[in-house]
Amino acid sequence: MSRFLIFGLILATCSIAFASDPSPLQDFCVADPKSPVLVNGLVCKDPKLVQADDFLFRGLNIMGNTTNAVGSNVTAVNVAQLPGLNTLGISMVRIDFAPMGINAPHTHPRATEILTVIEGRFLVGFVTSNPENRLISKVLEEGDVFVFPQGLIHFQQNIGHGNAIAIAALSSQNPGVITIADAVFGSNPDIAGDILAKAFQVDINVVYQIQSKF
Amino acid sequence: MSRFLIFGLILATCSIAFASDPSPLQDFCVADPKSPVLVNGLVCKDPKLVQADDFLFRGLNIMGNTTNAVGSNVTAVNVAQLPGLNTLGISMVRIDFAPMGINAPHTHPRATEILTVIEGRFLVGFVTSNPENRLISKVLEEGDVFVFPQGLIHFQQNIGHGNAIAIAALSSQNPGVITIADAVFGSNPDIAGDILAKAFQVDINVVYQIQSKF
Amino acid sequence: MSRFLIFGLILATCSIAFASDPSPLQDFCVADPKSPVLVNGLVCKDPKLVQADDFLFRGLNIMGNTTNAVGSNVTAVNVAQLPGLNTLGISMVRIDFAPMGINAPHTHPRATEILTVIEGRFLVGFVTSNPENRLISKVLEEGDVFVFPQGLIHFQQNIGHGNAIAIAALSSQNPGVITIADAVFGSNPDIAGDILAKAFQVDINVVYQIQSKF
Amino acid sequence: MSRFLIFGLILATCSIAFASDPSPLQDFCVADPKSPVLVNGLVCKDPKLVQADDFLFRGLNIMGNTTNAVGSNVTAVNVAQLPGLNTLGISMVRIDFAPMGINAPHTHPRATEILTVIEGRFLVGFVTSNPENRLISKVLEEGDVFVFPQGLIHFQQNIGHGNAIAIAALSSQNPGVITIADAVFGSNPDIAGDILAKAFQVDINVVYQIQSKF
Amino acid sequence: MSRFLIFGLILATCSIAFASDPSPLQDFCVADPKSPVLVNGLVCKDPKLVQADDFLFRGLNIMGNTTNAVGSNVTAVNVAQLPGLNTLGISMVRIDFAPMGINAPHTHPRATEILTVIEGRFLVGFVTSNPENRLISKVLEEGDVFVFPQGLIHFQQNIGHGNAIAIAALSSQNPGVITIADAVFGSNPDIAGDILAKAFQVDINVVYQIQSKF
Amino acid sequence: MSRFLIFGLILATCSIAFASDPSPLQDFCVADPKSPVLVNGLVCKDPKLVQADDFLFRGLNIMGNTTNAVGSNVTAVNVAQLPGLNTLGISMVRIDFAPMGINAPHTHPRATEILTVIEGRFLVGFVTSNPENRLISKVLEEGDVFVFPQGLIHFQQNIGHGNAIAIAALSSQNPGVITIADAVFGSNPDIAGDILAKAFQVDINVVYQIQSKF
Repeated sequence: MSRFLIFGLILATCSIAFASDPSPLQDFCVADPKSPVLVNGLVCKDPKLVQADDFLFRGLNIMGNTTNAVGSNVTAVNVAQLPGLNTLGISMVRIDFAPMGINAPHTHPRATEILTVIEGRFLVGFVTSNPENRLISKVLEEGDVFVFPQGLIHFQQNIGHGNAIAIAALSSQNPGVITIADAVFGSNPDIAGDILAKAFQVDINVVYQIQSKF
Repeated sequence: MSRFLIFGLILATCSIAFASDPSPLQDFCVADPKSPVLVNGLVCKDPKLVQADDFLFRGLNIMGNTTNAVGSNVTAVNVAQLPGLNTLGISMVRIDFAPMGINAPHTHPRATEILTVIEGRFLVGFVTSNPENRLISKVLEEGDVFVFPQGLIHFQQNIGHGNAIAIAALSSQNPGVITIADAVFGSNPDIAGDILAKAFQVDINVVYQIQSKF
Repeated sequence: MSRFLIFGLILATCSIAFASDPSPLQDFCVADPKSPVLVNGLVCKDPKLVQADDFLFRGLNIMGNTTNAVGSNVTAVNVAQLPGLNTLGISMVRIDFAPMGINAPHTHPRATEILTVIEGRFLVGFVTSNPENRLISKVLEEGDVFVFPQGLIHFQQNIGHGNAIAIAALSSQNPGVITIADAVFGSNPDIAGDILAKAFQVDINVVYQIQSKF
Repeated sequence: MSRFLIFGLILATCSIAFASDPSPLQDFCVADPKSPVLVNGLVCKDPKLVQADDFLFRGLNIMGNTTNAVGSNVTAVNVAQLPGLNTLGISMVRIDFAPMGINAPHTHPRATEILTVIEGRFLVGFVTSNPENRLISKVLEEGDVFVFPQGLIHFQQNIGHGNAIAIAALSSQNPGVITIADAVFGSNPDIAGDILAKAFQVDINVVYQIQSKF
Repeated sequence: MSRFLIFGLILATCSIAFASDPSPLQDFCVADPKSPVLVNGLVCKDPKLVQADDFLFRGLNIMGNTTNAVGSNVTAVNVAQLPGLNTLGISMVRIDFAPMGINAPHTHPRATEILTVIEGRFLVGFVTSNPENRLISKVLEEGDVFVFPQGLIHFQQNIGHGNAIAIAALSSQNPGVITIADAVFGSNPDIAGDILAKAFQVDINVVYQIQSKF
Repeated sequence: MSRFLIFGLILATCSIAFASDPSPLQDFCVADPKSPVLVNGLVCKDPKLVQADDFLFRGLNIMGNTTNAVGSNVTAVNVAQLPGLNTLGISMVRIDFAPMGINAPHTHPRATEILTVIEGRFLVGFVTSNPENRLISKVLEEGDVFVFPQGLIHFQQNIGHGNAIAIAALSSQNPGVITIADAVFGSNPDIAGDILAKAFQVDINVVYQIQSKF
């Protein structure tokens, strides 16, 4: 029994994870969402128990709640919500915007994004890496499709008169999101103020002020 | 001058091609659509000449023409239409359906597909590989998201009362489409009738009859 | 004890699977064929217990039984038969043909095939994707080597006077096979007849007739 | 002749680029630095002309000039400086720090970094993605090795008494650098002030003030 | 005209190379063997000019000449001999052995090998990496299949009474071969004798003696 | 209970292994070094328990013990020593050399190496694959950076007056080392003497003599 407990303890502090977005090695490998200790994609559900529902997510037609500081909401459909995506290298999101809402500057460390405007009018842009830091931006109308290359900082702003909706897809089952403001000024714990003051060339009190908001 | 001609002739019979869907090695590598001989993705446009329009495709809100034998139409946005997708491993399509229209059984040899229903009601399904050949199918309503794993035969059928629309994304800049009926019964030239008669276990005249439609 | 049971139940409905064909991260990772719950490649046998037999398969010189509807037989040597192939991205098959036998049109969703004729004479071919659907075919004699690119529909037919033998290799430890006729007309359950009637532009009774054979 | 000119013009606006960091397909593929139009890695130098110097970079022992706003300097040895790195998926840097100097928060969109302290004492850290935004940080002494995972925002600060030196390697021949402050507040042209004001939850004049420094 | 000459000179010293073995991005990308300056796989032949012969190699049934120091001969069918293999990640070889012939210890830096015995009896083996350096070896009979994992040193010896034949496949279009004796004792120019004397712990004259044979 | 024992026995003879060096699918996947049965990288530590120390290795400033037959010592920092490297595709080493010490000819089956000279003067070289077997070598001084492409045989020799130090990075979390002399003449068990005598074209007694040293 003690061997079992030891084994249980080991597993209790581990999560088995699928750490890449490869081509599948079998028809599919549905992630088992019921597994409490062996999580995150590496454990395939028994193919015999796989059902159509494992490949289904419902509700992307439902508007997200945009009553927040930035006036936008992202409904993500990645492997956590749709276990059939496991090992298949793609995911989808719906982004809702209140009037003037923004999807603040962020990166996806593991994916390119392709976005189409379902409703509304957007200003979108991404910034190239050093040394150019060139802003490539565009006003998008309904039916426009735009690309945000992998790892680059990008944003969207609703510049139409009402709510706005975009559908986007990302080239990973788990693309990740790094919202710049949250990661730099809202980390847990905070990055030391003097580092950020020097990095952004502002007085340290400006840093503290921004950090207090996140 | 003769060396130039020889060189020109070589290039005239070649197309430089990017033959994989890797992570990018630079921020982006916009395919140069104006190049007559060096086509298909490997030639990056000079980054200094890259513009926001290279990442833009317009018109995914426009309904496709579904007056054809299967009652559906696919508007593709891959690297051929949107050169900024080059090396970024993703693309998008809009699929329109007339009432009772189908997107006939097909495979994407180089991509998984994630699809969401914008309008209408669909019966969708895919079939697993040998030996099970299990049909995994589902009725989808507006806002439903479904996954078709890479390389598997799949289809969609409009089972609602009016037109129907889906938006889908694929995990390749050039996923490819193999429509089963067209490839098997409509190839150029035809596959020999006796092969198909034995493969589908039908009289050879049934094969000839089907081939005559494609 | 109940924790063990819960854990057992979780595992009983899971299979750990290696879902890609990457370069190996170690000298080898022999799949453990004795594992009832942790199957399919991800679990490496303890390297200390690995033996030469883990890299060995016997009997590819034995003719397969070709007394079936298509007159051919495939003896596969992939990771399920040869656990040492795990993570190494390659597998092998022997294909036997009775006179006039065919290897019916099929795809490998995860591999390119390179084939050599050991004995006999073959008509082989593959069909390119949309919109060309070009048939690229050739008559092969003993000692000829031919390539079937990944994901494309292809076939072989014995056009010699006696039995015929080919040896082929595939660029995956688990390439998968989708026999078109079986997947389209023999799936479990059947694809609805009206979908196939429209897709193949035949009367629905022709569909039912073909489905009855698979 | 006009065909040549057209061809020349096409090439003049193109750069052939190797857009991934794959395993090599040959022993090496030295990038040809003398090529004015076919740049950036895809063109291999004729193997017969390759020399040992193609695999050599000199001067990583030379201290960089740290008299700048952040008090640090990065000497990069990637494929642009060392053409033999082409297709080989790795590069190296030396980072010099003045007392109190920082390597400001940045990401490498295409690489993980492994760093070792040659001289001095550092505070280093990286921040995980949403929603945790956890700061993982450590004080490093001489001989310490630390890892910054791909795509995550990270920084280093010299907290010793004198100059400091680190050597780091990155898992790409061209990892890219996105310095957060430069990309967000110093892009060309600027990101609209109202977007950044909402994103960082500051008055728009604070945004203008930071932008004026970059 | 001078621009053309400059361009020609650049190309004359370059070879465009496909430096990885990725999944294809299109149905196929046939290497153009007629191209004198743009060689080695990256240049796809115009798909319209591609023919079945591009996917064909003839003569693997022909015995190789084994009258040499080691009594064996390898007939390779990789992308150099079969241009249709380009980007498809696989190749094939036939190995002939005289009685007592060996395929001397060697590695394939870019591929795993799967081998089947067509005729004869073999002793085969591979050695694991440091620190175990375990020899995993087996006697193979006709119809046996054996695996040599990527990058490991391996060999085959004909231990039957007559000639022997094996067919093998490798998981790269250009796997490369490093014959240990040739690379270590037969390089051009020679590796310094004192290095090899220390490495192999022999008198330097033994090194010179071995070097004189290669 | 018996089911637990069966399960324990299965695990006792298995090691779960991460068999590739992919891009990460999450921010990180720290290997759990405490797991006795589920070893080697695939099991991610629970992210909540991950600490900065998981990304830290101490002591690369400590000189290795070079009192051995070749006069050199490699201190490796790969995933076994630094679990945070798991899935991140890079590792580091320090190499110490006594006067005249060598790092004997070896290959890394899964990585390219980039090396910089911290102290001393080196003769380094690598040998290309068949048929050229070209030695590409160089004398390196302090601050020089050199590249050893993946899978090729290479060596370093201290040709300065005192001890020498190099820092190198490798493009895999577990690059592997095959020291040629150890693998060929020191395997367990030995490769048969007649094979090596024919391969190296020496008398079998020379083979036995070399084998006796390893």
